[in-house]
Amino acid sequence: MLNPGTLIVGQSGGPTAVINQTLVGVVNAALRERRTFPRVLGAVRGIQGIIDNDFLDFGKESAENLELVAQTPSSALRSVRRKASADDCKRILARFQELGVSAFFYIGGNDTAETTHIVHEMAVAAGYPLACFHCPKTIDNDLRVTDHCPGYGSAARFVAQAFIGDNLDNRSLGGIKINVVMGRNAGWLTAASALARIFPDDGPHLIYCPEADFSLDGFCRDVEAVYRRLGRCVIAVSEGIHGPGGTPIIDLGEVDSHGNVQLSGSGALGDALAEKLKKHLAVAMPERKHRVRADTFGYLQRCFPGVVSPADAAEARLAGEAAVAAALAGTVSGSVAFRRLPGADYRIETFITPLASVAKDTRPMPRDWLSPSGNDVVGGSLLPYLRPLVGALPPIGRLAGLP
Amino acid sequence: MLNPGTLIVGQSGGPTAVINQTLVGVVNAALRERRTFPRVLGAVRGIQGIIDNDFLDFGKESAENLELVAQTPSSALRSVRRKASADDCKRILARFQELGVSAFFYIGGNDTAETTHIVHEMAVAAGYPLACFHCPKTIDNDLRVTDHCPGYGSAARFVAQAFIGDNLDNRSLGGIKINVVMGRNAGWLTAASALARIFPDDGPHLIYCPEADFSLDGFCRDVEAVYRRLGRCVIAVSEGIHGPGGTPIIDLGEVDSHGNVQLSGSGALGDALAEKLKKHLAVAMPERKHRVRADTFGYLQRCFPGVVSPADAAEARLAGEAAVAAALAGTVSGSVAFRRLPGADYRIETFITPLASVAKDTRPMPRDWLSPSGNDVVGGSLLPYLRPLVGALPPIGRLAGLP
Repeated sequence: MLNPGTLIVGQSGGPTAVINQTLVGVVNAALRERRTFPRVLGAVRGIQGIIDNDFLDFGKESAENLELVAQTPSSALRSVRRKASADDCKRILARFQELGVSAFFYIGGNDTAETTHIVHEMAVAAGYPLACFHCPKTIDNDLRVTDHCPGYGSAARFVAQAFIGDNLDNRSLGGIKINVVMGRNAGWLTAASALARIFPDDGPHLIYCPEADFSLDGFCRDVEAVYRRLGRCVIAVSEGIHGPGGTPIIDLGEVDSHGNVQLSGSGALGDALAEKLKKHLAVAMPERKHRVRADTFGYLQRCFPGVVSPADAAEARLAGEAAVAAALAGTVSGSVAFRRLPGADYRIETFITPLASVAKDTRPMPRDWLSPSGNDVVGGSLLPYLRPLVGALPPIGRLAGLP
Repeated sequence: MLNPGTLIVGQSGGPTAVINQTLVGVVNAALRERRTFPRVLGAVRGIQGIIDNDFLDFGKESAENLELVAQTPSSALRSVRRKASADDCKRILARFQELGVSAFFYIGGNDTAETTHIVHEMAVAAGYPLACFHCPKTIDNDLRVTDHCPGYGSAARFVAQAFIGDNLDNRSLGGIKINVVMGRNAGWLTAASALARIFPDDGPHLIYCPEADFSLDGFCRDVEAVYRRLGRCVIAVSEGIHGPGGTPIIDLGEVDSHGNVQLSGSGALGDALAEKLKKHLAVAMPERKHRVRADTFGYLQRCFPGVVSPADAAEARLAGEAAVAAALAGTVSGSVAFRRLPGADYRIETFITPLASVAKDTRPMPRDWLSPSGNDVVGGSLLPYLRPLVGALPPIGRLAGLP
């Protein structure tokens, strides 16, 4: 049974295009239950705001403005990358007692689920009654248990549209194009590039995900083979690719408080791959110069306004609403997950899974969704999985009279 | 007076999101005049296709498919970067005589206008009657004479949306973010980032265009000042920035047949600026670590399906139609240009300007559209110029209770 009291909601980790849908889902569901939640507070910058006593009172926000915020990308309450230390936990508990907090909702990925889990265990150990929920959010789609994660569909839509455009660009001028896609531990987002294949010779012609070990020599041979066949090659590369045993392809050296190495915010991996390819082709195909280019999609892919999957936006809202509903129904803690329902039409339902089941560890793509050679995806399971999450893509045509 | 004969249309240079609108504008206008143009051919890869005898017969394309192609980004006939040499001209003239060509339409930027001009002068010198038109296309918006260029509005829309999202992303997590935007000679596209400023503290906080000399030390001082004030800084940098006298900031060494240095397809400039900033801040603000990231928008910004300005698409179509109309009206040669009509509502009309007036040289932004210090744009003239070209942007909200 949930005690009446203050509700606190926060956002953590990297933002997404629909993370505020989840925030407004929590807030609106809570504001409808004034007897249970006399105060609904937003923690500014997640647990940092709880520690610093920096809150926003959602009772003072207008419904119209909340709808506008819901449609706006990136964490409206701002974000933080901070794992709750033992000392943080003491301060968080003291603040909860001070504010009479009965429920805490934390929106984020696996690191956020871990922090939610730590906070919950701290409350249990202290005998403090606290409903504690993690609302999923990650463009990486790498949370365990759930069918997919809010934020992924919109980022996957960006990646698909980007590859549709870039394949057409590459087709017009030829040469080799490498595109580096986000995804530290899993290739879900990189795999969405496969949605750009409309005509048989469309790219990406090669797709490299972290689920398969990467070799620079194998990469050069793969690209050369496509390039000799088509006169061009578009390549999707996850920023998380690595050699056997996780050895990095290149190393930028920066590490955050969760132990994550910095991968995004630099063109270094794409440029290193392009340099390697240029050197390879200068020897393998010395008869002419080769046009090799690399783009790193970087932060654009996670917060792009106007490139949002309708299903993703609706489900992100639902994730927030479902967490509050579970708390109201008496569930003490958990993480919201999605289950795909059987049937020809795409439908999902939500359920609550234990915090420990999504915290910390991530979920890779099934290895059999990648080709045995590790340089492509297998569309059979992947494409029906992806299409409803991403939504209908812009129609594409080509002249019938061109081969 | 235009002689009846074969019409040839081609596309050249970098593609845009709406370049096929112009192609279909030419083709449909020509197909309506069968007595004047018994054959309407597309040259595959521009003058390369004329030289290689590689053509597509538009009489065999369905109207429905042409409409789909019109909405598809990137040159449907494929493209080429080739300046017509004296030898090329001889071969082009021979092909025109062989095919009974009476009119040539070439879609592209200033280099394409130059090639069109060379081909036209060659025809005049040979006494060969040929209508010769350049249809403008460039995301750089740097053609002379015209108010603006087809392709620019959609690319500017991409840049504006990208900065809206990236400013929100940066606001959620703080730190410094550099975004490198295309634009070899002119800052038009980089300046469109200013459309992302909705609230007073929104980025981009600094905008660097090639029209003002760039200094690394001045850049570091500018960024530090914003960062000390706001705790964050979003920066728009044109790929074409340079020091006094055009000295490059970094040099990748590759040059095309028009003498253009490779700028895009690498994260090198952004990464070099980020490294410089990190070193500067380690000395200027040694009390803590600083998050500095760089993204290079690269090829995404010129062919992104689904991020298209409605005005740009309509005007790109009009540019093709207007070229054919001018040829039918007896004009011998020229380039299509736009003129903005007076009045509160945005309206344009087309006119024909001599090929020599747009060939070769490019048009920078007016220097007084940049701030005297060269680290920002001045919105007074720029924003009313930009808004109708880009169209309405996605609505953005923020929580009222956050400072």
